[in-house]
Amino acid sequence: MKLLACYLFQGLSPSQLERIAAITVEQQIEKGHWLFKEEQPATSVYLLKDGAIELVTLVEDAIEIPVSIIRPDNGCLGIGALVEPRLYSLSARCLQNSLVLRIEQSELHGLMQDDIEMHCTIMTNLAKKMLERLKETRQEVKIHFMNLVRSVTF
Amino acid sequence: MKLLACYLFQGLSPSQLERIAAITVEQQIEKGHWLFKEEQPATSVYLLKDGAIELVTLVEDAIEIPVSIIRPDNGCLGIGALVEPRLYSLSARCLQNSLVLRIEQSELHGLMQDDIEMHCTIMTNLAKKMLERLKETRQEVKIHFMNLVRSVTF
Repeated sequence: MKLLACYLFQGLSPSQLERIAAITVEQQIEKGHWLFKEEQPATSVYLLKDGAIELVTLVEDAIEIPVSIIRPDNGCLGIGALVEPRLYSLSARCLQNSLVLRIEQSELHGLMQDDIEMHCTIMTNLAKKMLERLKETRQEVKIHFMNLVRSVTF
Repeated sequence: MKLLACYLFQGLSPSQLERIAAITVEQQIEKGHWLFKEEQPATSVYLLKDGAIELVTLVEDAIEIPVSIIRPDNGCLGIGALVEPRLYSLSARCLQNSLVLRIEQSELHGLMQDDIEMHCTIMTNLAKKMLERLKETRQEVKIHFMNLVRSVTF
């Protein structure tokens, strides 16, 4: 997978992408294993090179709600690592044996400290994506709300 | 209200804040009036100096769902103006006669183009806030989900 396939890195120059590629580490994760858990300190961002990873959130520590499935062509995981308080906001479990590219937050932070244009581009991409996700999630709230209204009305 | 009261401008230097203050325009809005509507092109960000403004979203163009109430000490409005596709993601209506500080997106964009550190700080603040809002909104989805589970179970 190319780094550019991740929304975070859209708009970066070839040399900026090379510097990020140089700090990625390949990691194999077996089917059923957790890559990270919700509310844990977020130390890495991950790109998926092969396989499939499910993002879920827990309700009352018991029931899992699926949020999305990440495949090699649709995004990255662990973006909680990029902003304070640097906690994973969801849990990630491998649906298949997977190959990820791990980027240590501290190393990416170092690159961004040395290159404010890279920092600005990544943060702008992140803000844009978070606003999109927020709108999608509000849409889910609306659907639940309408179901509630209908169940009371009929 | 001081600009620093808005999360977007946290961490900016006094001279950066002065440059932003210089492009703000005071605007009176009467109780009941709409400051902007969901999905319209977002041309300005607003800070509330006095009054109260309600953020709502419409379901099926008919039912309003309240999202939050903005008061002079808790945030800003219209942050959809800061990222592509620059649309307001909610509608904003004055609950009381209000005084806002309007910041034209095009003027703020100009300041950020001239000062990449300002740009980077504002985008980092925005990304952090959007991730917080996303987590809060997922929490609402969880509550609806659990109500649904309970209504099926009992």
